[in-house]
Amino acid sequence: MKGIAVIGLGYWGPQIARNLHQIGDVLRMCCDSDAVQATAMGRAFPSLQIVTNVEDVFASDQIDAVVLATPARTHYDLASRALQAGKSVLIEKPMAETSEQAQELVDLAHRLGLVLMVDHVYVFSPAVQKMKELLDAGELGQVMFTDSVRINLGLFRHDVNVVWDLAPHDLSILDYLLGRLPKSVSTFGSAHSGLELEDVAYLHLDFGQGLIANIHVNWLSPVKIRHLMIGGTKKSLIFNDLDLQEPVKVYSRGVTVRSDNVEDRRRVLIDYRTGDVWSPHIPRTEPLRKVAEHFVDCVRNGRTPLTDGACGLRVVRILEAAQRSLPAYGEHIKL
Amino acid sequence: MKGIAVIGLGYWGPQIARNLHQIGDVLRMCCDSDAVQATAMGRAFPSLQIVTNVEDVFASDQIDAVVLATPARTHYDLASRALQAGKSVLIEKPMAETSEQAQELVDLAHRLGLVLMVDHVYVFSPAVQKMKELLDAGELGQVMFTDSVRINLGLFRHDVNVVWDLAPHDLSILDYLLGRLPKSVSTFGSAHSGLELEDVAYLHLDFGQGLIANIHVNWLSPVKIRHLMIGGTKKSLIFNDLDLQEPVKVYSRGVTVRSDNVEDRRRVLIDYRTGDVWSPHIPRTEPLRKVAEHFVDCVRNGRTPLTDGACGLRVVRILEAAQRSLPAYGEHIKL
Amino acid sequence: MKGIAVIGLGYWGPQIARNLHQIGDVLRMCCDSDAVQATAMGRAFPSLQIVTNVEDVFASDQIDAVVLATPARTHYDLASRALQAGKSVLIEKPMAETSEQAQELVDLAHRLGLVLMVDHVYVFSPAVQKMKELLDAGELGQVMFTDSVRINLGLFRHDVNVVWDLAPHDLSILDYLLGRLPKSVSTFGSAHSGLELEDVAYLHLDFGQGLIANIHVNWLSPVKIRHLMIGGTKKSLIFNDLDLQEPVKVYSRGVTVRSDNVEDRRRVLIDYRTGDVWSPHIPRTEPLRKVAEHFVDCVRNGRTPLTDGACGLRVVRILEAAQRSLPAYGEHIKL
Amino acid sequence: MKGIAVIGLGYWGPQIARNLHQIGDVLRMCCDSDAVQATAMGRAFPSLQIVTNVEDVFASDQIDAVVLATPARTHYDLASRALQAGKSVLIEKPMAETSEQAQELVDLAHRLGLVLMVDHVYVFSPAVQKMKELLDAGELGQVMFTDSVRINLGLFRHDVNVVWDLAPHDLSILDYLLGRLPKSVSTFGSAHSGLELEDVAYLHLDFGQGLIANIHVNWLSPVKIRHLMIGGTKKSLIFNDLDLQEPVKVYSRGVTVRSDNVEDRRRVLIDYRTGDVWSPHIPRTEPLRKVAEHFVDCVRNGRTPLTDGACGLRVVRILEAAQRSLPAYGEHIKL
Repeated sequence: MKGIAVIGLGYWGPQIARNLHQIGDVLRMCCDSDAVQATAMGRAFPSLQIVTNVEDVFASDQIDAVVLATPARTHYDLASRALQAGKSVLIEKPMAETSEQAQELVDLAHRLGLVLMVDHVYVFSPAVQKMKELLDAGELGQVMFTDSVRINLGLFRHDVNVVWDLAPHDLSILDYLLGRLPKSVSTFGSAHSGLELEDVAYLHLDFGQGLIANIHVNWLSPVKIRHLMIGGTKKSLIFNDLDLQEPVKVYSRGVTVRSDNVEDRRRVLIDYRTGDVWSPHIPRTEPLRKVAEHFVDCVRNGRTPLTDGACGLRVVRILEAAQRSLPAYGEHIKL
Repeated sequence: MKGIAVIGLGYWGPQIARNLHQIGDVLRMCCDSDAVQATAMGRAFPSLQIVTNVEDVFASDQIDAVVLATPARTHYDLASRALQAGKSVLIEKPMAETSEQAQELVDLAHRLGLVLMVDHVYVFSPAVQKMKELLDAGELGQVMFTDSVRINLGLFRHDVNVVWDLAPHDLSILDYLLGRLPKSVSTFGSAHSGLELEDVAYLHLDFGQGLIANIHVNWLSPVKIRHLMIGGTKKSLIFNDLDLQEPVKVYSRGVTVRSDNVEDRRRVLIDYRTGDVWSPHIPRTEPLRKVAEHFVDCVRNGRTPLTDGACGLRVVRILEAAQRSLPAYGEHIKL
Repeated sequence: MKGIAVIGLGYWGPQIARNLHQIGDVLRMCCDSDAVQATAMGRAFPSLQIVTNVEDVFASDQIDAVVLATPARTHYDLASRALQAGKSVLIEKPMAETSEQAQELVDLAHRLGLVLMVDHVYVFSPAVQKMKELLDAGELGQVMFTDSVRINLGLFRHDVNVVWDLAPHDLSILDYLLGRLPKSVSTFGSAHSGLELEDVAYLHLDFGQGLIANIHVNWLSPVKIRHLMIGGTKKSLIFNDLDLQEPVKVYSRGVTVRSDNVEDRRRVLIDYRTGDVWSPHIPRTEPLRKVAEHFVDCVRNGRTPLTDGACGLRVVRILEAAQRSLPAYGEHIKL
Repeated sequence: MKGIAVIGLGYWGPQIARNLHQIGDVLRMCCDSDAVQATAMGRAFPSLQIVTNVEDVFASDQIDAVVLATPARTHYDLASRALQAGKSVLIEKPMAETSEQAQELVDLAHRLGLVLMVDHVYVFSPAVQKMKELLDAGELGQVMFTDSVRINLGLFRHDVNVVWDLAPHDLSILDYLLGRLPKSVSTFGSAHSGLELEDVAYLHLDFGQGLIANIHVNWLSPVKIRHLMIGGTKKSLIFNDLDLQEPVKVYSRGVTVRSDNVEDRRRVLIDYRTGDVWSPHIPRTEPLRKVAEHFVDCVRNGRTPLTDGACGLRVVRILEAAQRSLPAYGEHIKL
């Protein structure tokens, strides 16, 4: 592998740059059209080449992979050009503004044999990894419902609503944990600022077979909550991302239907199982470091990323459907 | 006032009976078709007349008010007969199974000049009273959204789904706090037991003017949560019914849109206000005691209850619409 | 067994009476010198014989066991007379005002072959039973320290200070869990009301071999805390009596000294073990019910109570030493 | 002002260096005898002069102030030499190993007219500043007791016990808030590792007039707690340093003695006041940044630091007394 360039030095760019820098000799170049940002980066990392024109990145023969940390509306254009210039690409979420664009990027990367990875950063968090392990081992039984709450005060975005801003985190976690697309999406929301962008919204995903997922995203909540509950037929779990001491708790609690008497509902017997709560130790590693390492590994060794373009596409398809449902009062959009 | 009879001695009946007993010499009679329950009540309150046939209640000239603590499906029939026998009525929620029945009861009570009250018990809780006071004083500004979470493991009901079981609490609180009917309702839910009754559901109420209310009710949650968030343009509050020490918290936090530049969304300026959190002292009085006192006061002095038949009817209308929306994947039902 | 009488109908008496009543046909008589209390009890339990003179209890041949729910200063006198009248005795904590009195009661009961039990109610709580089971199974390794916090606002007692009021709970738990007397006690405290009774105090118990126990009792705390931490060489646990969902948590965390290089302290290697947190299911049974059942069982079958007079005596000895230490600024009192 | 040098680049040194660097052009030089640490610092801050010999610092005419971030045992020697070389000094806590040494440093700085400041970092935290403001305004009334809990698993120090490691934080907060020395100190503790340094300890400070302060420090606790409770005659407050959302809570709760009937204790009347809880907004500024700014301001403008040598001396005197009390089972050491 030759080297990596980070394009976009707003909030996320310097963070991924710092992580790439720490994992060894791969980060070569940073680019931001804003000279102030670019200069600041240069001071922090004197050994890097700093440019303000993306063409310099695409033209460089020292670079075989780029990280796109630019606004969502630029992803398709920049990623297409990067791929066509022969660079592998890691894109900040959401991957693109439309599923058509996302699909094109997937196809392009496939045709050119390049790595296309999306920064679904939660997938690389130790807590989500532990949850995946538990689900795959059948610890929870069959999943009946999931409920996500991702709310806090601000930060308002001027370009996308709260669904496109916050829901990709939950959608990428669900995509990873459940491993399949929902059948349909409905979304309710409301806008309260002059931005005319929804700042409170609820997404409902129907996965079929009784499995429903709800996601509450909110920029107006007076308190910060990061909560994911997964209800299974055997056990249930709660991931509280703000609980540093016990982020994941597994509950040996549930109901068992003993007699499934459909003729006479009153004679159905329901047992309540109460049991222990168990909080597995979750190591405190920085997920973005894992993202950086994984991208480098995939580029170097031609591997398919855990969060490849296809994952990014699935998340964009759901966001797109959610967006169509919003003005239609939660109309049921099939995928 | 002559005296009160409690009909139905399951879970709620003995509790309201105990409260009526404590407030003075008004409780005269208890009735349950199950002789075991009736006998147990007689042992606990030796001075009461215990009967197993409701006709004995309706025929008694010692009784001018009855409390219906029977299953929802019996409410309409028993309440009609009680009113026609000249008795004022306090009904456990939900008031009836359909809005037509509820409307008929309202009309009947009105025609006969009798008191018809619904046990919307939360309305009488000190926390909800404090919240009403804050809202009416304009402390929160305009309400933008409310979010209720009322979830726990069980208890499964065999006659109604989780919406009819748990949502009446939140609907009656919202009815009291906001003082108006929503314009439309959508409900998502799923059933996972042999009961074929939804055990997880989300209700969305659209009150117009950007105000949306979400209610999450769930019989499958491994943890118990009783949480109501109200987001206002000036302040926000959270009512946590399980926090004995600080059940209500008021947050001086929010956003202010300084420049409402609709032509150019990117130039809208948003200020974040951070401020104090204040938890008003909430006295620990038993709401059911207040319900009992209020009913006696209304019967004795011919007053209109705070939670009269009209309130009960409004809640039933929302439940009915929610029920229609459920099988239609959250279809938007106008009220 | 003939029957039981409860003497003293203040706060605790009616509660133990209710529990005795529920476990079957054993409660025969209640006694309080205050006719108002006695009459109220008579109304609640019409089948009981109500007296206002303890002589009537001691003289009754229907009674072979009494429960003393009277102030601590009366315990010795009433218990002596009850035992001498041939009645087994269950005494509310603390057992007596001095260790001499407690010793006499132990000796008297032994000589007469009667049951003498102390109401160390926490010992019968499911949480403490689970903790005992874990300790006895060696789950925690060797106990290094315990730390109790039992604080809240009020209720001020007019007869005893906060040490005699609240510390008996922790002392009886420690007595049960550790199974031995501390070697010495030191107590710090301060009085802030006109009562001139300490309302804030800290007890330190030295059990030898590095094991120290600290108890913080406080009537002036703005918040209520009921917390017991037990640090072991293998694992540690925390009992939070106010956490209804997870009262006991076991932490697989600790330190391991790998190289015990006493010559050169700087070369001692310390490993930190981080691990899971596990919260065993604790059934919600009322401890006082277990106390009632256990006392009846011991009287009926001549068994030695789990919390016999000897336990009560040990707790009184510690309280007595703590009391001596208080005015002497925490003087180290050997037991 | 010419420039500042940071001596010692372990844990705290790089942090204070980063803060000094950010506040403008004052940090000139860093020094660590360990060449590895020194080199790493040089890479991070290319503009700094990096040396491995403190003599180079003391001899430099570019430096008029030094920060000592070295182990406590070196403080006296290095601070003396720095002062004698004409440099103002900021010392990491604890200021010295003995009160004699601390006194000498105070005297030396005074004689030479140099600034001597101790890094009592909590004094500069917005939460402690808010608490000071509330106390000085008389919001709490008279302070009756304080209770600190500063416990967590590790990190074991090899040079000092848990008292010298953790208690300086609480002692410096109390020194700032109460503004006076305690009259006496008693300490209980126990050592459980091969280090033979106490890892669990309780300090009791008696300030006279009924005011007692307790500090629990612990390296073996399975959970991390940072809790300071201050009980006043009017209100009480709790500072929970780990609660990011509401670090300081003020409780309008307490007791009022209405009739101070010392002749007959049973007739003393105690009222319980329950009231609101208020959590003032606490800005999130980094205390170390304030320390850096304050030191620069004091050096530049010849001001006396808020946490001057006299503060550091008072804290060392208490630590010294606490240390004497430890092996004597909490012997009461007068100050």
